[in-house]
Amino acid sequence: MSKIIAINAGSSSLKFQLFEMPEEKVITKGLIERIGLNDSIFNITVNDEKQTEILDIPNHEVAVKLLLEKLTSLEIIKSLSEINGVGHRVVHGGEVFHDSVLINDEVVQQLEDLSELAPLHNPANITGIKAFKNALPNVPAVAVFDTAFHQTMPESSFLYSLPYEYYKKYGIRKYGFHGTSHKYVSERAAELLGRPSEQLRLISCHLGNGASIAAIESGKSIDTSMGFTPLAGVAMGTRSGNLDPALIPFIMEKTGKTVDEVLQVLNKESGLLGISGLSSDLRDIESQASEGNERADLALEIFANRIHKYIGTYAAKMSGVDAIIFTAGIGENSDIIRGKVLRGLEFMGVYWDPQLNKIRGKEAFISYPHSPVKVMVIPTNEEVMIARDVLRIAAL
Amino acid sequence: MSKIIAINAGSSSLKFQLFEMPEEKVITKGLIERIGLNDSIFNITVNDEKQTEILDIPNHEVAVKLLLEKLTSLEIIKSLSEINGVGHRVVHGGEVFHDSVLINDEVVQQLEDLSELAPLHNPANITGIKAFKNALPNVPAVAVFDTAFHQTMPESSFLYSLPYEYYKKYGIRKYGFHGTSHKYVSERAAELLGRPSEQLRLISCHLGNGASIAAIESGKSIDTSMGFTPLAGVAMGTRSGNLDPALIPFIMEKTGKTVDEVLQVLNKESGLLGISGLSSDLRDIESQASEGNERADLALEIFANRIHKYIGTYAAKMSGVDAIIFTAGIGENSDIIRGKVLRGLEFMGVYWDPQLNKIRGKEAFISYPHSPVKVMVIPTNEEVMIARDVLRIAAL
Repeated sequence: MSKIIAINAGSSSLKFQLFEMPEEKVITKGLIERIGLNDSIFNITVNDEKQTEILDIPNHEVAVKLLLEKLTSLEIIKSLSEINGVGHRVVHGGEVFHDSVLINDEVVQQLEDLSELAPLHNPANITGIKAFKNALPNVPAVAVFDTAFHQTMPESSFLYSLPYEYYKKYGIRKYGFHGTSHKYVSERAAELLGRPSEQLRLISCHLGNGASIAAIESGKSIDTSMGFTPLAGVAMGTRSGNLDPALIPFIMEKTGKTVDEVLQVLNKESGLLGISGLSSDLRDIESQASEGNERADLALEIFANRIHKYIGTYAAKMSGVDAIIFTAGIGENSDIIRGKVLRGLEFMGVYWDPQLNKIRGKEAFISYPHSPVKVMVIPTNEEVMIARDVLRIAAL
Repeated sequence: MSKIIAINAGSSSLKFQLFEMPEEKVITKGLIERIGLNDSIFNITVNDEKQTEILDIPNHEVAVKLLLEKLTSLEIIKSLSEINGVGHRVVHGGEVFHDSVLINDEVVQQLEDLSELAPLHNPANITGIKAFKNALPNVPAVAVFDTAFHQTMPESSFLYSLPYEYYKKYGIRKYGFHGTSHKYVSERAAELLGRPSEQLRLISCHLGNGASIAAIESGKSIDTSMGFTPLAGVAMGTRSGNLDPALIPFIMEKTGKTVDEVLQVLNKESGLLGISGLSSDLRDIESQASEGNERADLALEIFANRIHKYIGTYAAKMSGVDAIIFTAGIGENSDIIRGKVLRGLEFMGVYWDPQLNKIRGKEAFISYPHSPVKVMVIPTNEEVMIARDVLRIAAL
């Protein structure tokens, strides 16, 4: 029996979940926010009860120390020596990491080298890794990458139609993200279908504030909608997804913005927020649309339409599909979006039940029993995947 | 009986075709190249024989005068008064023009206003219009737009996931191109299928040096792969198609290029040329691939793969498809590309015959008779569409 902690460190936050493994029992979880700012927030759930404390946490090192102190002072564990392994979510593993990896100095150096591919995320992830290394120097730590699952994509999927040397010189290619989630739900789908992954063609729709679709054949990702960065693919909460590249200089000229400012607009002011002018939160959009707001309705249509189209795209790519999976905040909870995405796919064997589709946040089939293509809602669990990988990679 | 001339004016070229209408008989056709440069080339086909002359043609006005002189001096027509109408291809009609239009001063002004949307094309088209207006002031002239056929797209198709005001203020939306070609082949497909357009869901693949795919439902374009500009969509001879927008600042930083220089790379050095490093001409790529060149083979795979995916995309969009159409240089002639595009679409009812697929440049069904989805090769004819529209719009 091992206690493993899964860590997701952002630039000013640190999410944690402590597992009893291999039982996959969650012992505690929480979130530290506003690290490095005034009035940092420390959240921890003990015995299903959430405790919140406001205090100043100047950096990740202090955040980690505080977290470890709390684990013992709240008697969640008796001693830090009970922690057998730490798993760190890392956004970008480039082409270097095809699987999770035991972290050593060389790996940290490689992650730093990869930071130019994920300048917002990798440095924060590395900060978390270093803070735990200082606090628990003798506990094995494993890096689990958002990109690793997609490293099985063939060259014809991951290569852009750009000068080939851009790939060789600068690493410009499609990497894809949300890999840990796509892997989790695709493995879970195979279990629920009672069929080996090797025999399945799955389309996984991870629809949260960020959203990506993946084509998974024989248990391997063969294509995905996100690209070189998480900006690409479908429309998201505030992200534009794919665009005519010629729009960038046109927007620069019209608005007087620099290229970086335009990218900021595409990342932070587009998607659901940009179209609706209201909110990046789908729940707000749904409620405004139900009250007759046309722009909100348009945002829903466009959001769902792009995903609907990807289902056709990836069915064509795999010469058909056996199951479609919905996961993450929107995918697990919005029957409206699922309904719009699934509408009119009977021609490819998708028959779904509007009654079953009402499910929220639970594992369920929402296709009719006779539907050749199954449709499933599967809540994602990236944390448990991280804990599993710590167990496997650190050979605990 | 009317004689109508169809004109396609580029920045240094002028393509023409003279029709006897409504018989749609081609009386003569030709191409004037290198206008404004030394050693301009004047090509004209008389009685199936091509005549070429090298001379200096300083501008489009002179080119048009020369063309009209030739028509009489070569006794193709007896007098210029036999020309009853002129049709001009115009690339961009913005949201102003949903159909072809009789040209007057107001229309010319509107075309000039639209030039910022097509800075390479519209000014050249306008030059051609003015040159003919001077030479044949009393002959009705009609503008036929590449964008007009796609003006039926719903807002959920044409709107980008960008701040909504970018659409309202700057006209940023998907316009789509090759409309005259998509319209021609879709109308012809309905004839060949013996079914009214209103009952058909068609996917039209215009594959030339530029390439675009259109979803045509009930005779109307409801989506297309090109976007705000003809750079968007699938990979082309030298164009990248859609990309992760975040690549643009990354390429700028890595190469030291300006945003306009990067766009130049995406327009002129990407696509088949960029991937293969060999040529933008599909015939070269096919021949190199057949000799075992791996990069050429990769370029073919990527080119076909993107189109294959669009077939799935648009089938999903229309809840199925009745016929798939291939047209333009590559679509009409490359059985290799057609074969790669069509491979593995049986799940959506596409069954095609490799023997029939060998056809080149002729109207033909290449699907099996029992295939629920028909697949057709239809050579495009934008010129005859222009002549037809002159007849219709000028009420000749």
